[in-house]
Amino acid sequence: MFQDFKLVDDRPVAIQVKEYIKRLIIKGALQANQKLPSTREMSGLLKVSRNTLFAAYEGLEDDGYTYTVPGKGSYVAVMLEPMNGGADDSAAWQIDWKARMNEYAVSAVELDIMKQGIRAKKGAISFTSIAPDEQLFDLGDVKRAFMDRMAIEGQVLLNYGYAKGYKPLIDYLMRYMENKGVDTSGKDMLITSGFTEGFDIVLSALRPSARSGAAICENPTHHTAIKNLNLQGFEITGVPMEHDGIDVEQLEAVLQSGASRFDLAYLTPSYHNPTGIVMSPAKRSAVMKLMMRYQIPVIEDGFNEELRYSGAHIAPLIATAGQGNGVIYIGSLSKVLFPGLRVGWVLGDHALINNLESIKRARSIHTSTIDQSILYQYLLNGNFDKYVKKARMEYKRKYELTKACCDAYLPKAKLSGDGGLHIFLTFPTGVNTRRLLEACTEQGVIFTPGDRFFIQEGEGTNTLRLGFSRVTDENIEKGIRIIGQQVRGFL
Amino acid sequence: MFQDFKLVDDRPVAIQVKEYIKRLIIKGALQANQKLPSTREMSGLLKVSRNTLFAAYEGLEDDGYTYTVPGKGSYVAVMLEPMNGGADDSAAWQIDWKARMNEYAVSAVELDIMKQGIRAKKGAISFTSIAPDEQLFDLGDVKRAFMDRMAIEGQVLLNYGYAKGYKPLIDYLMRYMENKGVDTSGKDMLITSGFTEGFDIVLSALRPSARSGAAICENPTHHTAIKNLNLQGFEITGVPMEHDGIDVEQLEAVLQSGASRFDLAYLTPSYHNPTGIVMSPAKRSAVMKLMMRYQIPVIEDGFNEELRYSGAHIAPLIATAGQGNGVIYIGSLSKVLFPGLRVGWVLGDHALINNLESIKRARSIHTSTIDQSILYQYLLNGNFDKYVKKARMEYKRKYELTKACCDAYLPKAKLSGDGGLHIFLTFPTGVNTRRLLEACTEQGVIFTPGDRFFIQEGEGTNTLRLGFSRVTDENIEKGIRIIGQQVRGFL
Repeated sequence: MFQDFKLVDDRPVAIQVKEYIKRLIIKGALQANQKLPSTREMSGLLKVSRNTLFAAYEGLEDDGYTYTVPGKGSYVAVMLEPMNGGADDSAAWQIDWKARMNEYAVSAVELDIMKQGIRAKKGAISFTSIAPDEQLFDLGDVKRAFMDRMAIEGQVLLNYGYAKGYKPLIDYLMRYMENKGVDTSGKDMLITSGFTEGFDIVLSALRPSARSGAAICENPTHHTAIKNLNLQGFEITGVPMEHDGIDVEQLEAVLQSGASRFDLAYLTPSYHNPTGIVMSPAKRSAVMKLMMRYQIPVIEDGFNEELRYSGAHIAPLIATAGQGNGVIYIGSLSKVLFPGLRVGWVLGDHALINNLESIKRARSIHTSTIDQSILYQYLLNGNFDKYVKKARMEYKRKYELTKACCDAYLPKAKLSGDGGLHIFLTFPTGVNTRRLLEACTEQGVIFTPGDRFFIQEGEGTNTLRLGFSRVTDENIEKGIRIIGQQVRGFL
Repeated sequence: MFQDFKLVDDRPVAIQVKEYIKRLIIKGALQANQKLPSTREMSGLLKVSRNTLFAAYEGLEDDGYTYTVPGKGSYVAVMLEPMNGGADDSAAWQIDWKARMNEYAVSAVELDIMKQGIRAKKGAISFTSIAPDEQLFDLGDVKRAFMDRMAIEGQVLLNYGYAKGYKPLIDYLMRYMENKGVDTSGKDMLITSGFTEGFDIVLSALRPSARSGAAICENPTHHTAIKNLNLQGFEITGVPMEHDGIDVEQLEAVLQSGASRFDLAYLTPSYHNPTGIVMSPAKRSAVMKLMMRYQIPVIEDGFNEELRYSGAHIAPLIATAGQGNGVIYIGSLSKVLFPGLRVGWVLGDHALINNLESIKRARSIHTSTIDQSILYQYLLNGNFDKYVKKARMEYKRKYELTKACCDAYLPKAKLSGDGGLHIFLTFPTGVNTRRLLEACTEQGVIFTPGDRFFIQEGEGTNTLRLGFSRVTDENIEKGIRIIGQQVRGFL
């Protein structure tokens, strides 16, 4: 015994010794009431210092794995053996968990594209990600933000926070939204773990109790939104996109045919995912007037709004709604700054936020205060403007390169996207992009087939999304050339 | 104009100037196509350097609030005005959000004790918290953990992580659970934003689709668990507590009367909240045998397990279950380490975790990687043992002081609790602790009335919970003395 002890990592040696002995006890190699070798003996056996052994033995006793008999030494404590030692017995307790999963849990897996999608092989050129390029991250500024905040109120940050969010961040973001032209009177804010949690909480509050819900969306739209609407039992009516945003005439037709059945609309007016389209000011106004006339609550996805490359500032829908309380704005800086900081915000009517706050508390108590406070201090330190300027320039450059490559290698594809981190391609009918993907995967290139962004099965089978943010210039060119070669076989 | 500019905080001056001008544009004080004063003029007006003005003007243009006419200067861009300027119009869009809230959203507020409870007045002695004492936090070690990890893989930490969790932390915690005697074969782990999210995700997967659910709990039990079970539509059957844990005979009687109707049991075997009782090894074994016989899945709340003051190591239920897959263990170090780090873990059967992972992804994509990686590095650096040793000693001291004060000042109260961060008191029938609370609040002392931990209304009206972790020695003594004085009026 004790021959197989090895220092395995860079953790303190006393802890490694303690855990080693703990395992021997757990496995039954050291038995109840058995005497451990003295620290002197063990020191020789394990080849570690006696001081280390003192610490390890003390830790074992602290954790209740051993006890000391004064003048005699350390003994193994009595453990409760599993099922009183009836191992055969316990193995018989096999619950069929798959059979116990409800509809929601089953659908969650079925709709989980991370479990269904094609995985990039090593070395493949992947256009599937629309996460930011981590090479742009200003790590020094993030570290400084953390250290600054910890120095000011470290103990507070590490204890419980509030369900509503970290107060300094809420105040900052309220002012931030006012600077986008939002009338914040009568409104309030809830901080969430990113856009997705905010969206899911809003849906869980608005989902009708007695019947299934109904929602209006742009078609195509963000597939996470489609997923969560489906999971929460909403039926989705899609309204087609035009080059400058949702088709307002069709939207009106849908509303005229029976607006009262809709519980909400979900819209992404800026850098719409997947098409990359920015809704024109005129359309924003027209859409808001329609929603107001028919009293349809709007969930506005502020996705990527900050990544505007060019053109005049365009107010979000919630600003366009002025003093009206019909818009729920969900913001996030995940795509602009750091997705790893799981922070988003829901801005909406005060009474609504009051309910959402209690749901948030029931679901996860509160959003990570460390994440919130790093973000707050980072913004306060003035790092955001500097970083976004750099990011916008870099993504604009990549956007233009991607566009030029598509023009050169994919002449038959209609391209949409005014910026952001991706472009969207529509091929002539007959080009099935799932089959195209299979062909391209063989050649080491992957992308996101567009059909998953459409509401109805069978729509958008000739479309795809190219995320370029994390692809090198060389691979953008090479990858799109390969897609072009493969497309020819489908035309 | 420009007279009211004031530097308000310690953010970079250029950003404050930029936001000041932005606000003037948003408010309409500066109108579309109006020329801004030159940087030279503005520099004089705002009393900031011209270089600052250059940066601010550049930022305004970057953000689309102004445009430059070469050789002439900066002009205000055309903004979309809310509802085309129809302010009266927009104010008319008033959705009655309260009326749109579903049952879940309404119940979330009704069951939200943070919104119902008595608030401590300034200077009051509060025994309501069972959060750790932040004075014990080793901030230096936390900072070091963050800086260590950022140095190793900062860019990775700030980009998207995985729904399942941060791999190094999962590996660490799997080993940690093995050291508690858990057979991890066939099991897997999901990292969540603390215990609460893990519990809510598990319930959302196990809630029956077609009927309301049914759960067995210790009575009393953790009120967040009661709340979330209620919110997810479970009916709860409570089984009374004895001094060494759940009443096994009563549990058996409940199961005999129709086990098939129960979807799950929720149990807290160590430092049970609110009673503070540690379930004896013999009872753990007996409970597991019953659950196995009746095939009832068990959700084990690992709450405070690490805060054991004394006595032999007691294996968690999931270890007792051996190779059986019927226990879902939810762990968290929130109460032991830092509640601000929102990290918990669900350990259970592999197939179950697969579903939970997809639900987690749909709800919030993933848990804060910063929180996970700080926790991981903190554990790896060997800080945990050192900290827990200090915390255990301090809480043990406070526990004994609290116990002694209760014995001295509350002779009629039956006390339970083997350690942890709180004790639980049962007064003679007739002492209504809600009314006692009112009387004590008048005297500047608050605590948690015990009835909220009981399943049925009207139970436990003579009980209360005293959390002592964040109360000074002096106030523990003073506060309990005051409670004692007030109790006399009710006997």
